[in-house]
Amino acid sequence: MSAPPPTADVGLFEAIHTARSLRHFKPDPVPQELIERVLDAAIRASSGGNTQHWSFIVVRDAAKRRAIGAVYRKASDYTGAQYAARPKPDHLSQAQYDQFLANSGYLWDHMAAAPVILVPCLKKRELPERTALPEAVQARYADHLANLHRISGSSIYPAIQNIILACRGLGLGTVITTNHILYEDEVKAVLGVPDDVATFALMPIGFPTRKYGPLTRKPVAEVTYADSWGRPWPPP
Amino acid sequence: MSAPPPTADVGLFEAIHTARSLRHFKPDPVPQELIERVLDAAIRASSGGNTQHWSFIVVRDAAKRRAIGAVYRKASDYTGAQYAARPKPDHLSQAQYDQFLANSGYLWDHMAAAPVILVPCLKKRELPERTALPEAVQARYADHLANLHRISGSSIYPAIQNIILACRGLGLGTVITTNHILYEDEVKAVLGVPDDVATFALMPIGFPTRKYGPLTRKPVAEVTYADSWGRPWPPP
Repeated sequence: MSAPPPTADVGLFEAIHTARSLRHFKPDPVPQELIERVLDAAIRASSGGNTQHWSFIVVRDAAKRRAIGAVYRKASDYTGAQYAARPKPDHLSQAQYDQFLANSGYLWDHMAAAPVILVPCLKKRELPERTALPEAVQARYADHLANLHRISGSSIYPAIQNIILACRGLGLGTVITTNHILYEDEVKAVLGVPDDVATFALMPIGFPTRKYGPLTRKPVAEVTYADSWGRPWPPP
Repeated sequence: MSAPPPTADVGLFEAIHTARSLRHFKPDPVPQELIERVLDAAIRASSGGNTQHWSFIVVRDAAKRRAIGAVYRKASDYTGAQYAARPKPDHLSQAQYDQFLANSGYLWDHMAAAPVILVPCLKKRELPERTALPEAVQARYADHLANLHRISGSSIYPAIQNIILACRGLGLGTVITTNHILYEDEVKAVLGVPDDVATFALMPIGFPTRKYGPLTRKPVAEVTYADSWGRPWPPP
């Protein structure tokens, strides 16, 4: 069953430019109809070979949210140690970076406070045997497997971006986090996820207490090249 | 320099529900202002730790497009062999699957015909040494590295979905393809991409000769669970 078309549709570019990562939520539950609309947006994304080998777990049960929150808290110690060991990214001011760390740290402690935790998953696809690959590539089998893992996200993160934008369009807030991955097995155990399925993110969802965008970013000209690496965009 | 706000903004949900994968393009060049708007949408996505460690290469040069197209054609032989070895996905009718194969096959032969090939990249981040991980995890180091590769896409595929939606909003067509990954080194050589940067997709972009959506998908209820794997959504 598809959700009915939304009545007041926010503009696409307005949504893209204001869909800030939001981690602070009101305790109010999210109406099932809105969750349905978010999911109905997620599944419109493309997936490799149009296989749609995705699944979404909508976690509203308080005990399960607490259990996931506890794993996330533990995993975040590792993330925190990584942040502490790295310098501030050059493109962020100290104030921006401090705010980022404060917001992330808030979520480490309060994942379970989100009324919904959405867990996007993909069924693992069988990878080719080394001998099934062209001979020229067999010597680089380990690299090739790493590349295949790397592109596996192309079948789920586009759906996840649709979730982020749909939340923005419906007055909800959310954020992608992947901190849990070090202890993914424990999250999977909480939710009964089978061995041949992998999680790709945790997405806390709720009505936000903070405001949407605008989003400050490194400008296009700093991250874009024309025709070859290093050639300026826009072209002179 | 940011692109000016678009004057006629398509609705968010309309864009999400109609942004079909489009692979057939008119030969007309894409105005630079539209490419700028697409990129300005891309960079509004989130990235892990807000590092924005992405780069985008806008390939319009005909010789470079032909060189990429030749690598893509070679790589697609492998993809084609995979498709041939796999059964039709259950959720697609034979007609839908035949159309998918025909459209994909068209792109294998005509990548260079797209007036723009956009190549989204990420700078590789240093991975932790085994001994830097919590002791409980060290025995699973190989799995952990695979998981890290798997979630690396969370910093680029959301931007890629913004590109797809922005193209839809601006009257352009595009598609994600990752077929090139087996011969990624050759694509990188064409574009001069350094060793510490990885490509995550090829995105042909142009004015489409075919129509936007609607998009047929497995319904939400078939791919969603409530609170635990296997429990039906929507809840009874």
